[in-house]
Amino acid sequence: MIRKIVVKDARFPLTNGAGSDAVHQQPVYSYTVACVYDDKGNCGTGLAFTLGAGNELVCAAARFYGEQLIGKELNEVMATFGDWFKQRADEQQFRWLGPHKGVVHLALAAVTNACYDLWAKQQQVPLWKLLLDLSPEQVVNTLDLSYLEEVLSREEALKLLIDMQASRPEREGILRTGYPAYDTSAGWFNYSDDQLEANCRRAIDNGFKALKLKVGAKNPDTDIRRAHIVRNTVGADIKVMVDANQQWNLPQAIAIGKRLADINPYWIEEPTHPDDVLAHQTLAAALQPLKLALGEHVPNKVIFKNYLQTGCAGFIQVDAVRVGGVSEFITVSLLCKKYGVPVVPHVGDMGQLHQHLVLFNHIAMGHEALFLEHIPHLRAHFAEPANITGGFYHTPEMPGSSCDLLALNTFAG
Amino acid sequence: MIRKIVVKDARFPLTNGAGSDAVHQQPVYSYTVACVYDDKGNCGTGLAFTLGAGNELVCAAARFYGEQLIGKELNEVMATFGDWFKQRADEQQFRWLGPHKGVVHLALAAVTNACYDLWAKQQQVPLWKLLLDLSPEQVVNTLDLSYLEEVLSREEALKLLIDMQASRPEREGILRTGYPAYDTSAGWFNYSDDQLEANCRRAIDNGFKALKLKVGAKNPDTDIRRAHIVRNTVGADIKVMVDANQQWNLPQAIAIGKRLADINPYWIEEPTHPDDVLAHQTLAAALQPLKLALGEHVPNKVIFKNYLQTGCAGFIQVDAVRVGGVSEFITVSLLCKKYGVPVVPHVGDMGQLHQHLVLFNHIAMGHEALFLEHIPHLRAHFAEPANITGGFYHTPEMPGSSCDLLALNTFAG
Repeated sequence: MIRKIVVKDARFPLTNGAGSDAVHQQPVYSYTVACVYDDKGNCGTGLAFTLGAGNELVCAAARFYGEQLIGKELNEVMATFGDWFKQRADEQQFRWLGPHKGVVHLALAAVTNACYDLWAKQQQVPLWKLLLDLSPEQVVNTLDLSYLEEVLSREEALKLLIDMQASRPEREGILRTGYPAYDTSAGWFNYSDDQLEANCRRAIDNGFKALKLKVGAKNPDTDIRRAHIVRNTVGADIKVMVDANQQWNLPQAIAIGKRLADINPYWIEEPTHPDDVLAHQTLAAALQPLKLALGEHVPNKVIFKNYLQTGCAGFIQVDAVRVGGVSEFITVSLLCKKYGVPVVPHVGDMGQLHQHLVLFNHIAMGHEALFLEHIPHLRAHFAEPANITGGFYHTPEMPGSSCDLLALNTFAG
Repeated sequence: MIRKIVVKDARFPLTNGAGSDAVHQQPVYSYTVACVYDDKGNCGTGLAFTLGAGNELVCAAARFYGEQLIGKELNEVMATFGDWFKQRADEQQFRWLGPHKGVVHLALAAVTNACYDLWAKQQQVPLWKLLLDLSPEQVVNTLDLSYLEEVLSREEALKLLIDMQASRPEREGILRTGYPAYDTSAGWFNYSDDQLEANCRRAIDNGFKALKLKVGAKNPDTDIRRAHIVRNTVGADIKVMVDANQQWNLPQAIAIGKRLADINPYWIEEPTHPDDVLAHQTLAAALQPLKLALGEHVPNKVIFKNYLQTGCAGFIQVDAVRVGGVSEFITVSLLCKKYGVPVVPHVGDMGQLHQHLVLFNHIAMGHEALFLEHIPHLRAHFAEPANITGGFYHTPEMPGSSCDLLALNTFAG
């Protein structure tokens, strides 16, 4: 039985240009940390990610949702978690503050993720194994598929999972080899050209086959110059992704995107406003065969559905600490599977939770094991930091979702 | 100079079924009330609307934005308000909590609206007159037109206003006749059939030529029965609008919308999820010539742009206490003018602020003076409640935007 919920406000200022992009000059990586306690001594930890100011608002909203778990049996909640989630997401007064977006949805993510973490800890298995051991019906029961009916019925979601069951063994080898990682920390926005070049060399030395450069400078020539530095440093065989963090309007995105084609980027990430489905559709058509990677700021399955329906997204970057948590992440991943678009999560969780989810996506859904973003800046704060060597995430083996933080009592809030 | 900002949490539980719809069974109409004080003894009041729980989160976020006004000259802020607004909307840490939606954008609306109220009070004119007395350039300087470049440049926005200047006198008669109102309070969701019929008769007796019915019942037969009661009671010449408050998925909306066509509704409002641009596009095509009215839950200009680009909206119901306030309301109204779609605001403010804005839209932009929603339940709480007789809003004459509330110190929070 769930007996207590505690929500903590954890903030980690970054320094020396780490984490900087075209929007965020002084990032404070922050978590709303929902801690759900059962009566057996287990504590489930769920995260939502923010950038500092206002994290206390997400914490307050998470307490509102979390209190509705008290006295419940977690197994019963998880058996029909899709219903529990929809009832919370549609809570008649809180819903006005979204619906299904912003502070309230981030808060629901933290509580949802805590439920999944506790569920895995109760069964003494890592989250990826808990998810893989669920039947397709049990998986679908954890999902809220409302507002997707015209593209993904419950029956179709079930079939997507059932159809991949026979071939699972072919994909389970990844549990031994590890899941490929890419390096986001080579090309933060505020890094000097020298630093950028040194970081690129270090990334390759560390085994990474793909890395990211932040663009979106006031003067696009800066972006072009830095992009060429990266390409010249890493050579033709390393994948280079560029990330504009929404700094461009549509005409700018078309113009600068075409110039960036010279360095053959693997994708262009968040070129413009995340709500602008039609601008992305126009842009994708204008820049093809260049592909767009979208989703870091997309709050829910409905907008992802529109992204997929328009065909604008070459890669979907759904983030389980931005959408309503693990269950909505899986829902969006099923949508992507239906549309044949790879899922390459944004990792507001620094990859701690997503290292479990991409294993599930690959083995249970047959999503390509492309690579998972790696951001190292908060390693020292996690109880079980992701273990990345030679450019691969090693499969986590401890019970839960790897989201426990150290020394929480020392944080602000 | 702005010397102080106070934010209050005002909540008004409704009773006896008033305010009920398919989502909200026990509505608590609530305002985040931003009070901005200058050093001359003026206080500007700005509202954002919520439905109760979580209003305290919007209040906290409004304090964050409001504090950034302290020490500023209001005239200087308003001279380039579009820039001020964009800087706040893109504040590097708070932006993560949106962007441009949910709690943080509601908070920005309250502060923005307080600035406009104070601006009008300082000049001792009602807001509609202040807005009408601005030059087209001054109006456009108050707007943040970013992310609209491909459909509405600054030059085009200016031209839309300049082109309508010569014909303004033809439209100024409305200041004397008043702006038509429609009655939302005839058909709340929880009203009995008898109450519904009596309310319809009363609405007609009170001079209304249009009224609204809440639909979206679990059993659609209920909706159809109630819709026929309304049509049979009011006759063929009264406009009847039906409002589903997002309760339908796309297949349901198509099926029930076709059945509702029998009663010839003037529009179908909020049929499905507000983020689902493509579902609305499909639905509008399936139900034509029936028209959709959309926007009550749409948080920003970018999604409205998509609505307009797809042609799904027959009417745009932008609400200045839901989007980022007066300036974003005007921005969306300019977009609607360009696309030839009428603006019929949702009135979370109970029409207090919007009675000014629709006069501006009609006279300065040439938008049709269709009608403005009327909801009477909070009349007793406003210092200068909107004056509606014979089915018309009388033109407000007192300085400001008519948003001052009485006895604020007695409210929760």
